[in-house]
Amino acid sequence: MPSVVLSDRLAHVPASPIRKLVSFANAAKKEGVHVYHLNIGDPDIKTPDVMLEVLRRWDKNPISYSQSHGEPEFLNAIDSYYQACGYSCISPKNIQVTTGGSEAIAMAMFSVANLGDEIIVFEPFYANYNSYAAIHGVTLVPVPTNIENGFHLPTKEEIEQHITTKTKAILICTPNNPTGTVYTKNEMDMLVAIVKVHGLFLLSDEVYREFTYDGTTHVSLMSYMQDIPNQAVVLDSLSKRYSLCGARLGMLVSLNADLMQGVLRIAQGRLSSGLIDQMMASKLINVPTSYIESVQKEYEKRRNVLYEGLKAISGVTIPKPEGAFYAIVGLPVADAEDFAKYLLTTFRDANETVMVAPASGFYATPGKGKNEIRIAYVLHVDALKRSIEILKKALALYGSG
Amino acid sequence: MPSVVLSDRLAHVPASPIRKLVSFANAAKKEGVHVYHLNIGDPDIKTPDVMLEVLRRWDKNPISYSQSHGEPEFLNAIDSYYQACGYSCISPKNIQVTTGGSEAIAMAMFSVANLGDEIIVFEPFYANYNSYAAIHGVTLVPVPTNIENGFHLPTKEEIEQHITTKTKAILICTPNNPTGTVYTKNEMDMLVAIVKVHGLFLLSDEVYREFTYDGTTHVSLMSYMQDIPNQAVVLDSLSKRYSLCGARLGMLVSLNADLMQGVLRIAQGRLSSGLIDQMMASKLINVPTSYIESVQKEYEKRRNVLYEGLKAISGVTIPKPEGAFYAIVGLPVADAEDFAKYLLTTFRDANETVMVAPASGFYATPGKGKNEIRIAYVLHVDALKRSIEILKKALALYGSG
Repeated sequence: MPSVVLSDRLAHVPASPIRKLVSFANAAKKEGVHVYHLNIGDPDIKTPDVMLEVLRRWDKNPISYSQSHGEPEFLNAIDSYYQACGYSCISPKNIQVTTGGSEAIAMAMFSVANLGDEIIVFEPFYANYNSYAAIHGVTLVPVPTNIENGFHLPTKEEIEQHITTKTKAILICTPNNPTGTVYTKNEMDMLVAIVKVHGLFLLSDEVYREFTYDGTTHVSLMSYMQDIPNQAVVLDSLSKRYSLCGARLGMLVSLNADLMQGVLRIAQGRLSSGLIDQMMASKLINVPTSYIESVQKEYEKRRNVLYEGLKAISGVTIPKPEGAFYAIVGLPVADAEDFAKYLLTTFRDANETVMVAPASGFYATPGKGKNEIRIAYVLHVDALKRSIEILKKALALYGSG
Repeated sequence: MPSVVLSDRLAHVPASPIRKLVSFANAAKKEGVHVYHLNIGDPDIKTPDVMLEVLRRWDKNPISYSQSHGEPEFLNAIDSYYQACGYSCISPKNIQVTTGGSEAIAMAMFSVANLGDEIIVFEPFYANYNSYAAIHGVTLVPVPTNIENGFHLPTKEEIEQHITTKTKAILICTPNNPTGTVYTKNEMDMLVAIVKVHGLFLLSDEVYREFTYDGTTHVSLMSYMQDIPNQAVVLDSLSKRYSLCGARLGMLVSLNADLMQGVLRIAQGRLSSGLIDQMMASKLINVPTSYIESVQKEYEKRRNVLYEGLKAISGVTIPKPEGAFYAIVGLPVADAEDFAKYLLTTFRDANETVMVAPASGFYATPGKGKNEIRIAYVLHVDALKRSIEILKKALALYGSG
């Protein structure tokens, strides 16, 4: 009997650097160890109660399919949100509801690039871009950014050096996961100028739009939509904005009508996003702006605690994050993944430990980020302070081991 | 400025034949016309109340990510369900929770076939297989079945004629969407024998497992799992079983450990399925077997009404469906899609009309199924009788127009 062989491409889908150590964390928890999760951007901040009220008052039965384009009530709510942001060029026909921001990323990559085509990303970048690039056979071309200037963009010339005949798009994330960098108006102007000259799509992942600190203004690709209507695609999600990670809801937004028709056909293949999640999230129109403001303030406080705490540890480097709730942190270790495993399998302080994401998975260039971790500062200040203390003790013991 | 071009492959993703006429239906509804939906398998049968109670008592806040593999409580519930079905070779490590059965189909195609590889399907087949084949660059090779023998399988020799060096899998759906055919033990034995000899995967979409009529027994690929542990993959969903279409939950089940590790990596890329849907559906362990039995009886009654009603219309051909809740129906028209549009845009009877799915989208061979529609008998008996009456009147008028 001939043996069956899985597809080669399955082997190329990487394990998530954020989640690959989950089995070690589960084993620690089974032993009764408390694990502080700094590995994943899963906030402890409360989902607005007005959304949970939709669940408590649920009376639809059966739980039927939603429309492939998106549940009309939810589409209208998203549209209202963008209108309130000042993006008046958007209407529901420019919005495709997606099952998480992840699906928006996948749809965008598939829609702009054929097999073997290239998409430029700035390294380090959100690790799951690698997953969808592998699934859809797209080559991510990493343009290096570095820790010294807080991971801001290189010059126009340096970026253009990476453009080939196969380049189809530039994919950015601002505020950035994993670096916390917020691109300035000058940087956004430069990117728009580049895609204009070279006829590229500009894909902007703006999941953390509201979370910027020290008075930094977020410059959205939305404000360039009318300038480059066929080229601009915004990828968005409700997960972080309203602490709705477990409700799988995102959006792909574009004025390009052909693109919107294409992604609708993809959406029809998977029938619909979740009805309950969409009905719940439709209540975003009843969430006061003070909610987002208070969440922004809370993350800024946490950013400060993390930054001051880690900066004070000998051998640790951390640029001050300008937005989102992540930081790339350089450690005085040779192999940050080994250290992350050590935290979960060996190190205990009063029966507690910390889980972090090795940063190498956020780089495409082999060998880069080996001594770095990504930290998500999504825990409350006390838990964050305690996590920093644990990291400090673990680094001291690990180094001497 | 050079213009941007979308990927060629986006153009190859087909519009859903089930949903492509939605805009016409919406327009009719806006005019105040009542539309009976026979186009989509979205049941009107109630979701078990014990599931909705989970929503009404919801107290988790925030709505956090679930695990990529699946929420443990839900995985255990699914495992219990399979144990109760008698499939004792399965444990949670053999189950990947998916965002709808759709994602299970996509994961399976990607995992077993490289770009340009072939998967054998029996025509007509579930239209969305075309979507995922287009997205993942897989060639579906249709083996014809025909209406005269109720769409049962051709001989072993006829099937084997379609196997090439590029063939990686045979994909079946039993009970079948769109034909209602339930494959016999002899047919399943034959398929297992074929994949053994040729070293192929056997992918079995068993979403309608419980819905068989006239005492027909469903023969699941589950009962062959230990015989072909590396080759058997079951694709499943809760949508139809518990009327949970709008809760996007399915499963991919296999004893092939490498496959399960691969699909987990794909799952990590999209983070998790919906938490609320999974918590709600976990209560399937509290749904009495009488629920499924009564749903099965109700569909059998509807099947009878549909079959007797349509058989009585002159020029209409309908094989008696053995399971699921679909039928492929031959109409005395040249172009069933044009007739389906006519129903939505022009024909009204007492301000009511019917929406059906043109069957050509369920065929891969061009020109096939042109005079056929797929009907989903998911409406209650009175609505079904009225729909048949409308179809009869519309056919008479359309033919004379």
